[in-house]
Amino acid sequence: MGKIRFGIIGTGNMGRMRIRNLHCRIPQSEVIAVCDMREAQVKAVQEEFGIPYGYTDCGEMLQNPEIDAVLIATGADAHKDQVVAACKAKKHIFCEKPLAKKVEDCLAIEEAVRENSDKCFTVGFMRRFDPSYAEAKEKIKNGEIGTPILFKGVSLDPSTVLDAHLEGVKNGIYVPWFIEMGSHDTDLARWFLEGDPEDCHAFGGAYVCKGLEEYDDYDNGFSLTKMDNGATAYIQVGRTATCSHVESEIVGTKGTIRVNSVPRKNYVSSFTEKGYVEECQEDFMNRWGDAFYNELENFVDCIENGRSPETTAHDGTMSLKFCQKLHQAYLDEK
Amino acid sequence: MGKIRFGIIGTGNMGRMRIRNLHCRIPQSEVIAVCDMREAQVKAVQEEFGIPYGYTDCGEMLQNPEIDAVLIATGADAHKDQVVAACKAKKHIFCEKPLAKKVEDCLAIEEAVRENSDKCFTVGFMRRFDPSYAEAKEKIKNGEIGTPILFKGVSLDPSTVLDAHLEGVKNGIYVPWFIEMGSHDTDLARWFLEGDPEDCHAFGGAYVCKGLEEYDDYDNGFSLTKMDNGATAYIQVGRTATCSHVESEIVGTKGTIRVNSVPRKNYVSSFTEKGYVEECQEDFMNRWGDAFYNELENFVDCIENGRSPETTAHDGTMSLKFCQKLHQAYLDEK
Amino acid sequence: MGKIRFGIIGTGNMGRMRIRNLHCRIPQSEVIAVCDMREAQVKAVQEEFGIPYGYTDCGEMLQNPEIDAVLIATGADAHKDQVVAACKAKKHIFCEKPLAKKVEDCLAIEEAVRENSDKCFTVGFMRRFDPSYAEAKEKIKNGEIGTPILFKGVSLDPSTVLDAHLEGVKNGIYVPWFIEMGSHDTDLARWFLEGDPEDCHAFGGAYVCKGLEEYDDYDNGFSLTKMDNGATAYIQVGRTATCSHVESEIVGTKGTIRVNSVPRKNYVSSFTEKGYVEECQEDFMNRWGDAFYNELENFVDCIENGRSPETTAHDGTMSLKFCQKLHQAYLDEK
Amino acid sequence: MGKIRFGIIGTGNMGRMRIRNLHCRIPQSEVIAVCDMREAQVKAVQEEFGIPYGYTDCGEMLQNPEIDAVLIATGADAHKDQVVAACKAKKHIFCEKPLAKKVEDCLAIEEAVRENSDKCFTVGFMRRFDPSYAEAKEKIKNGEIGTPILFKGVSLDPSTVLDAHLEGVKNGIYVPWFIEMGSHDTDLARWFLEGDPEDCHAFGGAYVCKGLEEYDDYDNGFSLTKMDNGATAYIQVGRTATCSHVESEIVGTKGTIRVNSVPRKNYVSSFTEKGYVEECQEDFMNRWGDAFYNELENFVDCIENGRSPETTAHDGTMSLKFCQKLHQAYLDEK
Repeated sequence: MGKIRFGIIGTGNMGRMRIRNLHCRIPQSEVIAVCDMREAQVKAVQEEFGIPYGYTDCGEMLQNPEIDAVLIATGADAHKDQVVAACKAKKHIFCEKPLAKKVEDCLAIEEAVRENSDKCFTVGFMRRFDPSYAEAKEKIKNGEIGTPILFKGVSLDPSTVLDAHLEGVKNGIYVPWFIEMGSHDTDLARWFLEGDPEDCHAFGGAYVCKGLEEYDDYDNGFSLTKMDNGATAYIQVGRTATCSHVESEIVGTKGTIRVNSVPRKNYVSSFTEKGYVEECQEDFMNRWGDAFYNELENFVDCIENGRSPETTAHDGTMSLKFCQKLHQAYLDEK
Repeated sequence: MGKIRFGIIGTGNMGRMRIRNLHCRIPQSEVIAVCDMREAQVKAVQEEFGIPYGYTDCGEMLQNPEIDAVLIATGADAHKDQVVAACKAKKHIFCEKPLAKKVEDCLAIEEAVRENSDKCFTVGFMRRFDPSYAEAKEKIKNGEIGTPILFKGVSLDPSTVLDAHLEGVKNGIYVPWFIEMGSHDTDLARWFLEGDPEDCHAFGGAYVCKGLEEYDDYDNGFSLTKMDNGATAYIQVGRTATCSHVESEIVGTKGTIRVNSVPRKNYVSSFTEKGYVEECQEDFMNRWGDAFYNELENFVDCIENGRSPETTAHDGTMSLKFCQKLHQAYLDEK
Repeated sequence: MGKIRFGIIGTGNMGRMRIRNLHCRIPQSEVIAVCDMREAQVKAVQEEFGIPYGYTDCGEMLQNPEIDAVLIATGADAHKDQVVAACKAKKHIFCEKPLAKKVEDCLAIEEAVRENSDKCFTVGFMRRFDPSYAEAKEKIKNGEIGTPILFKGVSLDPSTVLDAHLEGVKNGIYVPWFIEMGSHDTDLARWFLEGDPEDCHAFGGAYVCKGLEEYDDYDNGFSLTKMDNGATAYIQVGRTATCSHVESEIVGTKGTIRVNSVPRKNYVSSFTEKGYVEECQEDFMNRWGDAFYNELENFVDCIENGRSPETTAHDGTMSLKFCQKLHQAYLDEK
Repeated sequence: MGKIRFGIIGTGNMGRMRIRNLHCRIPQSEVIAVCDMREAQVKAVQEEFGIPYGYTDCGEMLQNPEIDAVLIATGADAHKDQVVAACKAKKHIFCEKPLAKKVEDCLAIEEAVRENSDKCFTVGFMRRFDPSYAEAKEKIKNGEIGTPILFKGVSLDPSTVLDAHLEGVKNGIYVPWFIEMGSHDTDLARWFLEGDPEDCHAFGGAYVCKGLEEYDDYDNGFSLTKMDNGATAYIQVGRTATCSHVESEIVGTKGTIRVNSVPRKNYVSSFTEKGYVEECQEDFMNRWGDAFYNELENFVDCIENGRSPETTAHDGTMSLKFCQKLHQAYLDEK
């Protein structure tokens, strides 16, 4: 089998990062086409990476028979139409998370994917491919903590992003945090606990950025969810932290696993007048670079070996539903 | 002013530990009387510590005019009558936590205490006097983390205690874990967040010790509470941990404080084939010895200097109410 | 057997701390006599603790036949005469470290102790009784790290003490740091490695407190010692740290044990703008309080049960010799 | 300026890793030639990476005028001739560490490099480019710890490599550990302390792998070095650790920086029956992948911008001399 030939839809930061990985670090793949509504952007990316085909129309790109696989790195609103079209064009599809912003879109994607079931489809919940999360999952599979009964997911952005976020909310670009950031932890909760949400409660508030309140948004959200198998998920999201702070804990009947309990920036620690200090993570790409790479490598490997990617369109749907339940619970209990 | 002369009611482990502290480590106090229904026990303790007066009847002891202060270290069911009697006898009173098992008893205590208001009264939520918790509170007071918006309290016993606990439950000795162990975290939540519970949700289950289920008890409980000032409390209790694990986190608008995030047994760490290992706390007294001592020293100091102890009978009432709300929430959502 | 009756020589901070422990926390012992050249001090201590006998002359105190054991908490220069006299008076003896400042004094003590060999004698290297060091030793005895081949001992005082130290050096009160602070690590090295120093090398300097140089003293000293059994000791002392920082590491052929690698002040940690912060130890007594208590309790237990204390006068001699070798190596290689 | 065109000498693991980085992750560079005595190997690498030129003779490759820069990834014995030839051919040169095994070879390299001084030359001490070490250096430059007075470098391999190592020693492939592994820490010591070794002492032994002794080799070496500026370096190397353990500490007059004090494998930690556990680093490439990449990127940037690489041939010479002094000190004091 030759190299898997990719067409990329979307040339923002994520799209270009994906191209870099496919192009440079995954020898079994190559990027032969790129698509973006912004023509200049298309040309720039073609030039930077030596990509032969450029498109401003997604439909057009999908007709290119040389393309084996499509990577969709556009905004969530655009995913449904692009996935459905790519399914019809019988491509393998890697779609960034969240799968969509509406459940009906997710369901339409699920259906299209079902009808293209001899091709690979996955949605990019990259945390599952972070070496630490992958190891945590492996340990749990091996029974090291018994049966998981509690997932605690904390995903916090530094407060430095607050102003820009408020602008985004005002402009209708950003969705509330349980839906945006929450998509990761809802997926992790389902993945680790192997269940779906049954009963959600959520509190929180716009404690620091009061302006969020009138948009039904908040800068901190705290939630508790009973899963349908009797386990529980505590999911906390926020945007007022001192660093980029994503940590998780899975409590089992026989032990507990933590991931990134202290979000250390690197291997440096210092003794200063303040005491013992470890600087913390600020750079999103630094933390998740390996995960982004690993999930793509895994996707290429699935195509090559006819394996089905573990993360399905249904996972995308269920994550969104879970997020919406958390956000609704917040609104109900406000 | 001479030494504060204490009479002790109850000579179990807690009572004797208290005597040791009053007798040996707090020079401004002395223990001159001890009371227990078990006469042999009374005599043994009198002898061990050289305590002049011994009683098997609490009322009798309270008539001893040499006694300035009473320390009540009996079971929670007995507290109400003893506190009320001690109030009538115009003694300073230190009552172990929980204040009582019924809210009506708490209220009766509150009333008696009000009528004895020129004497000191406190209830022994010793965690407030642990050097680390005290420092956390101090930092928060100093504004180091801004406004507290979330308290996370985790209190876990090692699974080694499970069988004995089930026996206790069967014999009606033990109350459910949100009420027993939860009393600490509910008090901490109120103390750190400076609010009272408004809306509680709780899940959990008898995951390991199935026998608990028929007693409406559980080996793990997870709860989320909205406080009346908009803050949130996550309280987790359990009895299936690998060690004695009590940790807390207070999240503020400007920073976060953790207490005992890794419950290290001591200062030893090892590199072994398993990796880097720190053994964990198993010994309750070892962890809280300083707290038990500090709170008693503080109580004696309050008496000496006419200060009112910070922890009031009302705190005892409110902690119990909070615990009951958590337990009820668990039952409601079961 | 009745209580062990102690006479205390020296009523400085150490002496009074020892009295508090013997008096209050070790029920098998009582302090019946206290001796200090300063009469007012003697009276004050007698009153504070209710000690019947007070002396300003050590020889006089030793004639008191009610005294079973003597605790010597004077300056190291005074130890020899006091120990020799106490041996002649057939007392059990607990002598603070260092045993003496001259090797000939140590040897005189060793001889006197030999002739009083049916009584207990020990020298107060309290670190051996710190719960963490004791556990480290136990683990090593149990073979958990194989054969120890390297001891690394780091003992640092905070730089806040530097000025006072220079004054002390100018006034001839303080000895160089390899001899003063080094006494602990030389003893630990011998204890953990079960060998004696054969070949010492040492560097360092008066990097911050230049004034020390003319007294052949230094604010940091770094040394490497080959032990006579082929193991190695790295001993580092200093007075310019950001906290009170005493850590040790024992490297074995199969694993490594560390003690107090991060000298955490307590159980608190914080997320601040600086990152993840753990405040560090500043209070000497806080760190070693348990050790001081445990070693005294062990000594009383030795007397009661006719056991020989593990730490001998010879250990005191060998520690001093080791310290002197380190200091001499520093001078030689300067 | 076009891309920097590289020719690679040596196609072992290091060479191929370098090609991957140049080829895939550094867009300003391309690999156009590869050289190895083993023809099949050359062809395989050419094919894998699409490299146009292949050589089995280094001199031949150096005559290719399209090549701007040469990366030498052969054994240390071969470095001198290759560097000298590459200098004569007026290429930029990146030479893996150690620079050579003999000081005279180093000096010959230094001279050749001087005569090719308008081209870039560097030697691959990659640790300097590890993000954590780079940050440590930056903090020190910024005065955060005052003047560095002590460097502690610990470089340990897991004991799992011992048998293979002994074989290598028997076959004359491996040099003693102070020279092999020590090259990193000697370079770091010089880099952080900004001085050169004046007086070295070293102990150690073949504690576990007795067979090393007859080759004047050892499985653990402990050394103390006085630098010519009054600072001190403690360098410890070993091959009997429980993991791949490389940690460093730089002590300054005002603070201390540590790098990788606990060599955590990833972000996972667990609570198990053993206690709190963090698995440790085993994979060399995992730990240093970023460093290998960063140093190469820096080298390419130096060429592009006419900057001189910080790490010079002289650094290579001085590191070797330092290593030899340590090894000689070990032999002298044996």
